[in-house]
Amino acid sequence: MRVLGLDPGLGTTGYGLVDNDDQNLKPICYGVITTQPAQELALRLYDLHQQLTELLVSFSPDVVAIEQLFFGNNSRTAMAVGQARGVILLAAAQNHLPTHEYTPMQIKQAITGYGQADKIQVQRMVSLLLGIDEIIHPDDAADALAIAICYHHASRWDQIIDQQGV
Amino acid sequence: MRVLGLDPGLGTTGYGLVDNDDQNLKPICYGVITTQPAQELALRLYDLHQQLTELLVSFSPDVVAIEQLFFGNNSRTAMAVGQARGVILLAAAQNHLPTHEYTPMQIKQAITGYGQADKIQVQRMVSLLLGIDEIIHPDDAADALAIAICYHHASRWDQIIDQQGV
Repeated sequence: MRVLGLDPGLGTTGYGLVDNDDQNLKPICYGVITTQPAQELALRLYDLHQQLTELLVSFSPDVVAIEQLFFGNNSRTAMAVGQARGVILLAAAQNHLPTHEYTPMQIKQAITGYGQADKIQVQRMVSLLLGIDEIIHPDDAADALAIAICYHHASRWDQIIDQQGV
Repeated sequence: MRVLGLDPGLGTTGYGLVDNDDQNLKPICYGVITTQPAQELALRLYDLHQQLTELLVSFSPDVVAIEQLFFGNNSRTAMAVGQARGVILLAAAQNHLPTHEYTPMQIKQAITGYGQADKIQVQRMVSLLLGIDEIIHPDDAADALAIAICYHHASRWDQIIDQQGV
């Protein structure tokens, strides 16, 4: 099972591709898709869609896992990120990929066992779980890997529950 | 010049196509693109993108005009509409169409001469300006036509200013 984790943003979208072979997590690639703030909004969304589609075609994930963000009272940021998320979800649907969404708390819980863990704790655990000897940069790529791991953990639990017929 | 006005929404996106022949506004078609709330989000965005792309290909507008919305403290609504807007702006860019955005106040000002006009006043003026003998339904289609008219009015002003060398 190959999962593409995505941390969506208009300027920077983190991505992380994680395989699960015989219950071992294996990082395939990670990084960020960026768009130029000086460019027109529609063209930035076009660039994001195109770069993401290239990733989907090149690496053929089975599933896309994406962070579900909340912005409290900040509707301006919600609008900007919403536009990027719309394009990301569309690219997944166009490539016939199921999408799963996780809240920041679910992701922290899955990675560290603690829903209130801080950013550094999450990043260290991501490196540890994937056997990477350093803290992953940039942050958005580490976050995207965390989302992909979250999907793998959640589906492992689902399997155990299915097997035990709970 | 053929303008497609769009009033974006995840559940309902209003559209209105208005030509400008010899300074006369002529409505070509109007209506709404809807998506099913029971369906998965990514598939709703896929449906919206596909229906809009069909409109763009069938009617070949020169320009897309879209309402620029503000949601105050409501970041949840901003996120939902943002996702729809992202997909709409992407479809325009994929069809090499320039996009123009107008605030609700700019649209009301262009249609009625008064930025605080109410919904009914705007709808009546839209019917009058386009020579349609009835109030246009649904509201989202009337709003989309208003946005298209706003673009035509704004570009007429730009022409006058250019001609007078102001």
